[in-house]
Amino acid sequence: MTHKAKKIVIITEKLIVEKVTKLIEQCGATGYTIFSAGGKGSRGVRSEERGGVSEAYANIKIEVIVTNEELAHEIINKVTEKYFSNYSGITYIENVEIVRPQKF
Amino acid sequence: MTHKAKKIVIITEKLIVEKVTKLIEQCGATGYTIFSAGGKGSRGVRSEERGGVSEAYANIKIEVIVTNEELAHEIINKVTEKYFSNYSGITYIENVEIVRPQKF
Amino acid sequence: MTHKAKKIVIITEKLIVEKVTKLIEQCGATGYTIFSAGGKGSRGVRSEERGGVSEAYANIKIEVIVTNEELAHEIINKVTEKYFSNYSGITYIENVEIVRPQKF
Repeated sequence: MTHKAKKIVIITEKLIVEKVTKLIEQCGATGYTIFSAGGKGSRGVRSEERGGVSEAYANIKIEVIVTNEELAHEIINKVTEKYFSNYSGITYIENVEIVRPQKF
Repeated sequence: MTHKAKKIVIITEKLIVEKVTKLIEQCGATGYTIFSAGGKGSRGVRSEERGGVSEAYANIKIEVIVTNEELAHEIINKVTEKYFSNYSGITYIENVEIVRPQKF
Repeated sequence: MTHKAKKIVIITEKLIVEKVTKLIEQCGATGYTIFSAGGKGSRGVRSEERGGVSEAYANIKIEVIVTNEELAHEIINKVTEKYFSNYSGITYIENVEIVRPQKF
């Protein structure tokens, strides 16, 4: 049996990963997953164009699963307000079905 | 034209990636994709905190797309039962729209 | 407040990442994110089986967010027609909720 939950995705500069994950935890999320990423956004070329795809990626994708929809919105709003004026980044929410909701 | 399908996501310790992908194939899935990951879960700090974000990630994300919803549930249930008492991990299902359903 | 959008995911060989991202931009998308990946598909073993999970991954995952559903379908159809006869790859679409739609 599965339970509905929300996955928050934040793609931003690696530079601020610790600040962003601290904010996520302060909001009350119990965990997150981090991936290295490259790409290109509306502000222009990001990481992988600077050194080829195989080089160190300068962006990061953070994924957070929460069972509370309000918390999902709180996290994306706070990250957007606090960081996306000064750092490039995008954030979005997806619907997921989880098992073991007590883990989140 | 697109077709509805399910994406299974498993985030767990890199240590057991071969066992988990073998189980996925035994269930009947035709393929999977693997990503290196770091993060923090309800059991405490995972990989990237041990050596900084830029170091080797000790977690793995496995994605599997199946056209059969029952198979999706079978896979997440089997992975959870078999591995998540002894290894840290989460698993969830997302809705996706695919092209070329014969590939899955 | 969030807005509905589509996330396109393309998983294919790293070899053609520049061609695929150029095609994505020509279609009118404003950005994309790239991740290294390994895996196994319906055409047989991909990257990580050739050298162990910890070695260089020979696949790539490209994610693109667009607010226009027709554009999402145009991109996955063009990528499939142009590249997936000669290169291994899959593509699918997911629903997402974004903030700041003017960024996409």
